[in-house]
Amino acid sequence: MLRTVISATGRHIPSVRVPNDHFLDRDFRDANQRPLGKTNEEIVQQFEAITGIRERRWAPPELVTTDLATDAAQEALDSSRLDPESLDGIIVAHNFGDVRTSRPAPDQVPAIAARVKSRLGIHNPSTVAFDLIFGCPGWLQGVILADSMIRAGDAHRVMIIGADTLSRISDPHDRDSLIYADGAGAVIVEGRETDGGVLARAVRSDTLEHASMLFMGASYHPERFLEALFLKMEGRSVYKYALNTVAGAMKEALDRAGLDVRDVKKILIHQANGKMDEAILSKFYELYEISPAPQEVMPMTISWLGNSSVATVPTMLDLILKGEMPDHRIEPGDIVLFASVGAGMHINAVVYRWI
Amino acid sequence: MLRTVISATGRHIPSVRVPNDHFLDRDFRDANQRPLGKTNEEIVQQFEAITGIRERRWAPPELVTTDLATDAAQEALDSSRLDPESLDGIIVAHNFGDVRTSRPAPDQVPAIAARVKSRLGIHNPSTVAFDLIFGCPGWLQGVILADSMIRAGDAHRVMIIGADTLSRISDPHDRDSLIYADGAGAVIVEGRETDGGVLARAVRSDTLEHASMLFMGASYHPERFLEALFLKMEGRSVYKYALNTVAGAMKEALDRAGLDVRDVKKILIHQANGKMDEAILSKFYELYEISPAPQEVMPMTISWLGNSSVATVPTMLDLILKGEMPDHRIEPGDIVLFASVGAGMHINAVVYRWI
Repeated sequence: MLRTVISATGRHIPSVRVPNDHFLDRDFRDANQRPLGKTNEEIVQQFEAITGIRERRWAPPELVTTDLATDAAQEALDSSRLDPESLDGIIVAHNFGDVRTSRPAPDQVPAIAARVKSRLGIHNPSTVAFDLIFGCPGWLQGVILADSMIRAGDAHRVMIIGADTLSRISDPHDRDSLIYADGAGAVIVEGRETDGGVLARAVRSDTLEHASMLFMGASYHPERFLEALFLKMEGRSVYKYALNTVAGAMKEALDRAGLDVRDVKKILIHQANGKMDEAILSKFYELYEISPAPQEVMPMTISWLGNSSVATVPTMLDLILKGEMPDHRIEPGDIVLFASVGAGMHINAVVYRWI
Repeated sequence: MLRTVISATGRHIPSVRVPNDHFLDRDFRDANQRPLGKTNEEIVQQFEAITGIRERRWAPPELVTTDLATDAAQEALDSSRLDPESLDGIIVAHNFGDVRTSRPAPDQVPAIAARVKSRLGIHNPSTVAFDLIFGCPGWLQGVILADSMIRAGDAHRVMIIGADTLSRISDPHDRDSLIYADGAGAVIVEGRETDGGVLARAVRSDTLEHASMLFMGASYHPERFLEALFLKMEGRSVYKYALNTVAGAMKEALDRAGLDVRDVKKILIHQANGKMDEAILSKFYELYEISPAPQEVMPMTISWLGNSSVATVPTMLDLILKGEMPDHRIEPGDIVLFASVGAGMHINAVVYRWI
């Protein structure tokens, strides 16, 4: 059966390490622009206890999303020795385009994928390069789209990159912004006759009541930022939505593959909040009447990488495959369940058998 | 054979008519911020002679891209009486997200497609809503992606919307900005067993030397606009590229469909410059040793709608199908060739047999 398999991975983990104590001198406000009534020490400690984030990575000021994406893509190509000219597509999932530190203005013309393709030096005009905007689940949605293109016979080999610089749209007066990080991850997928690869997927767009849970809004200290918009989050609503909905979508994908949770070797899930992911994992296993959930099934990077949106899952996959998360291995025959949730609200899940 | 057919169309033509004499009091500059050395009357007359644009439409300040897109989508649904809940996907092609007149900041979180789906009141969580960024050819690329999704068996019915507000990223000090307009067009496509529908496509991404022909740059009068970025164009390079490359891509698609130019009833091409489109048409027919090219084959809206980017082709299709361009009709059996070119540089073409 013609299926989509992963044939290469790469990542760019930005160089600037930002520990939580970086934020101890911030002037945090609430949505009504009032001080929070806690010391910054308390705010940061609570933040770490809830999210599990101890530090995050930021891109240095001279780099933008295109740079991170190109670097991850180049690493995927170099480590696999695949011919860049053999790519039929480059899909870049992002949410903010290239955000320079100097201007709060949008820049995705030309599309980031076109810039990356240019920077990779690819000449082949049939390497179709476009961007996909789907919140944090954008990278996995790119894999899902590439899977459709491949199974329809319209493409053979496609690179999917997730790259964003959330540090650039983080309101320094909003404690939620401590979550956000920068990064890029890339995979190359291709069609192959196999019983492995992408076995099934499930996607939800719950937009009717949930479209404004993550949104662009003014700074909580607006006199300092007249023009810029920042990523804002109704954190409790997001948490509740994710907890109620993600596990079901993961099970739906697994059901479609005809598999049971006991068949799953690893769950690679988007990471916005460590406690939330643990709660989702518990919910998921409870659907199969297993409690407690096994912890070793879910590799985590949030403690040192934060939430790098579309970059989180492909970066983690690359780390595992290259032996840089020694507690986690993926071997031929293993079932890997990918899942992500984010602005939209959107959820997606992919069941994959390693070959 | 399972093919993708168009089952509904809709449009939103913004209400604000902006004739060329609107620009007579502008302070036009060149890229080096110097005055152009011509009167504004001369500048506007030359502009009209080259582009064929006499007026364009702008959205009123209270509307953003999401509003235009939702309106076009609603019209497609209303005029077809298709059940909105039956959609498997909503793809919104745009380039700038929602651009408010008050802030030069990016806003595509959540994705415009998620906002449109929410505004349409669609509950079905399986209506997957994402945005596609591919320059002006984005709408047609959305049709091409939907065609892959449908032929792969991953979707049955998909709405593709093209919507943008280029007036909001137009530098008032750059005469090229007279080209830009606002608008939205929508189509609904679905899979059907037929010998019609989408017969073939061709796509090019010429990014190696052409990625910076259209780009976001500072105002030509930057002391007035410190933070904003505006759409900038190397007009002559774009013209030359389009003239040398679009006709070949159109022929490639037609070759793949096993058809000749004499089989083509209508060519619906993106419109950035009337003279450029005429030159492309001549080149295309010359590839078949026909000269001069028939003019009635190519409906044009640029004289009164300007260049509304991703909205141009679906808006024109809707106008024709609803009898509002009386010189042009499309009937069952007719071959329609869609084509577009834009920032990337990207080109795409689709051969379609009306059913």
